[in-house]
Amino acid sequence: MAKKLFLIPALFLSIALFAQTQDEVFIKKISDEILTNGKAYDNLRVLTKTIGGRLSGYPQMYKAEDWGYNLMKANGSDNTYKQECMVPHWVRGGKDEAIVILPGNKKKALDIVALGGSKGTGTKGITAPVILINSFEEMEAKKDQIKGKIVFYNYKFNPTFIRTFQAYGDAVKFRGMKGTSTAAKYGAVATIVRSMSHATDNSPHTGGTWYDSAYKINPAVAIGLQDADWLAETLSKNTKVNVFLKTNGHFLPDVPGHNIIGELKGAEFPDEYITVGGHLDSWDICEGAHDDGAGVVQTIEILRTFKVLDYKPKRTIRFVLFANEENGLRGGLKYAEEAVAKKEKHLMAMESDAGGFTPRGFFMGMSKEQFEKIMKWQPLIAPYGCSEFMNVGDGGADISPLRQRLNTPVVGLSPDSQRYFDIHHARSDVFEAVNKRELELGAVNMAAFIYLVDQHGL
Amino acid sequence: MAKKLFLIPALFLSIALFAQTQDEVFIKKISDEILTNGKAYDNLRVLTKTIGGRLSGYPQMYKAEDWGYNLMKANGSDNTYKQECMVPHWVRGGKDEAIVILPGNKKKALDIVALGGSKGTGTKGITAPVILINSFEEMEAKKDQIKGKIVFYNYKFNPTFIRTFQAYGDAVKFRGMKGTSTAAKYGAVATIVRSMSHATDNSPHTGGTWYDSAYKINPAVAIGLQDADWLAETLSKNTKVNVFLKTNGHFLPDVPGHNIIGELKGAEFPDEYITVGGHLDSWDICEGAHDDGAGVVQTIEILRTFKVLDYKPKRTIRFVLFANEENGLRGGLKYAEEAVAKKEKHLMAMESDAGGFTPRGFFMGMSKEQFEKIMKWQPLIAPYGCSEFMNVGDGGADISPLRQRLNTPVVGLSPDSQRYFDIHHARSDVFEAVNKRELELGAVNMAAFIYLVDQHGL
Repeated sequence: MAKKLFLIPALFLSIALFAQTQDEVFIKKISDEILTNGKAYDNLRVLTKTIGGRLSGYPQMYKAEDWGYNLMKANGSDNTYKQECMVPHWVRGGKDEAIVILPGNKKKALDIVALGGSKGTGTKGITAPVILINSFEEMEAKKDQIKGKIVFYNYKFNPTFIRTFQAYGDAVKFRGMKGTSTAAKYGAVATIVRSMSHATDNSPHTGGTWYDSAYKINPAVAIGLQDADWLAETLSKNTKVNVFLKTNGHFLPDVPGHNIIGELKGAEFPDEYITVGGHLDSWDICEGAHDDGAGVVQTIEILRTFKVLDYKPKRTIRFVLFANEENGLRGGLKYAEEAVAKKEKHLMAMESDAGGFTPRGFFMGMSKEQFEKIMKWQPLIAPYGCSEFMNVGDGGADISPLRQRLNTPVVGLSPDSQRYFDIHHARSDVFEAVNKRELELGAVNMAAFIYLVDQHGL
Repeated sequence: MAKKLFLIPALFLSIALFAQTQDEVFIKKISDEILTNGKAYDNLRVLTKTIGGRLSGYPQMYKAEDWGYNLMKANGSDNTYKQECMVPHWVRGGKDEAIVILPGNKKKALDIVALGGSKGTGTKGITAPVILINSFEEMEAKKDQIKGKIVFYNYKFNPTFIRTFQAYGDAVKFRGMKGTSTAAKYGAVATIVRSMSHATDNSPHTGGTWYDSAYKINPAVAIGLQDADWLAETLSKNTKVNVFLKTNGHFLPDVPGHNIIGELKGAEFPDEYITVGGHLDSWDICEGAHDDGAGVVQTIEILRTFKVLDYKPKRTIRFVLFANEENGLRGGLKYAEEAVAKKEKHLMAMESDAGGFTPRGFFMGMSKEQFEKIMKWQPLIAPYGCSEFMNVGDGGADISPLRQRLNTPVVGLSPDSQRYFDIHHARSDVFEAVNKRELELGAVNMAAFIYLVDQHGL
């Protein structure tokens, strides 16, 4: 495109019809500040490049906690503290290895990653025949053939869902408890799962798995899509294919982790809380840039922006970097537990944990009346990108305990989802996959939403 | 994010209220076909990696024409042809060089690219003092200081526009005729322009420039943002900074180029035409993946999909790969000229030339009545991503002559714009910057729109 248009869409003009001039003006100030002087991108570079992956219990978890605590203070939090909670300490324990042994003793290495929560194979590894399973129906039909084998779940990420989180919801049960425990129940010695992704590369995608306590905890790994296609094709042509697996995952005793909390004290209603956050932990194999470094630095950016603009909130705004979302949710549970114990009044909780891509909307869990009130603000926020407001009963994992225990209205940022599962829980979730403006726009839309709730209540 | 939601937004449910069941069903078929069996991404890989940059008159232009022609035929076009038009043949002519010479003869190389249409410096290059100009107001104020100097326009891409095309519209006049001709008018020997971008890297961004015929054609180059910041700071500290420039651009005589056209003949109204296209040319320094390889392969993907689904259009659908959008628009002009000469009835023309990113809407140029008719289809298309329909008087450069001469309603795909000016006209506009699903979703939304116009008229 050589000579471009200067588009001024209807959305931009329509807000002129609203009388809430003060809100419009302040939201524009928020946007200009973040898009002109934003620090989210630089902060993300430090978190991802100098600390990196930060799974619960790992030394990087503590480094990230200190980094977050110091950054909250440096950006003007009125009250900064660490809220302790015990977190699980699963460790990968070494290099994950998989070698396919074909008839005639031909060998081919697969690129795998052990799933979080899975058990290592022991130092000698295990070798067993592999059985291809494409669905849970097929698993039931073949349940007598599973014993002593490695189950290979090859269920494909469905490309026909427009919103990729639907494809994830559809496929992730093979990685989760149903997949691994069904395999264990029928006597499998390990599980290989096709990564929950539609990426064009071969990166394996990890993630948590869980076992029904009635069954054995087994080794469980993910493989990338190209290896999965090759293995499925190979199994369809050969009657006997063995795989050598060596993984080293195991649990150490729980350790203390922390939610990192900053506050801006409310001037009118200091005892009413508005929470905004992201989770500080990430999988160990990546930099956790989109998941959820983005949510972390957006949270701190909102604090920075409110301080720079000298905004004095009516309510107390809490900026929370949650501990242990990926394999335990202990941070979110602890935060709700304390809120209940202290009889705190929580007006609204917001989370950004769906990637640092261009914001398109918010998904929410709240009453019809609350949602109707919020929909009246939609024209004020839509010019900044978030036009799709959806009341779907949830706002994100870390704030779900607050919803369950205190019926707090919850809100999650909904960015464009097309690239998310290319990098989710994979080595490719790195700083370079995040775009500066997309990240900043997420913070703009979140800050505008929080400002409106603070000003007008909910 | 560990446990994701399965979002079923209100948008998805709302279309159930519409009675146009046949349309809904067919649009879903289009989407499923493209997202499951799409060839746009593979085609783009061939265009970008085996042909590459394809500026008008370059050998790659002819290779791309043959590739497009053969692909149209292979995908089942009823009638495939090349429509000849003479195209300009500006060549870069060699390596672009710039060296800053500081007091004390210290030297620093800058990364530059000559602007398309600019003149080379001659084989020995030129050396002249540089003057920093931040705005046209400053240019007027300093007009007596310009003679014999190199003008450095350092106008910044405004980050506060949410839609980046607005920032481009605001800044591009410094690269265009006003910038270069104003400099020439006041006696400058060359122009350096800050790239029209907010990228975080230092890549210079080329693009066309034009000269008022009253003034000299001069050398003109673009520099990346880091070099621009450094040069501006250096100039603010030093009274005398010279730059050595060597560029080699020049025009060769016009050569024949071609619009590549495929057709699906209309069964009911064969003489009514619906056009869909992108432009086949690109700048020479990049692969032209987003600009406009994306539009080209999306156009062919729509043809492929209609054939695979055995869709028999009512109207004749033309699939057009336009020649020479970047530095002449000769393809678009020729297409309209032929349409006028043959008294063709053009119902609608659509173009994709704003990148292969996630589609968010359509911008259009048409009557109020036509736009109202189209707005009724918005709920059918929105579930696939395009919810922002804007009647702004234009649909894209290649189809603008059709609008001007035949008053044809025009429509342009409007993808998410945040990443576009990171790569626009820069070396970084490569295949790897395109996401498979984002590219495919563009084709889905375009095909749905064309189907509705074909079925129901406009």
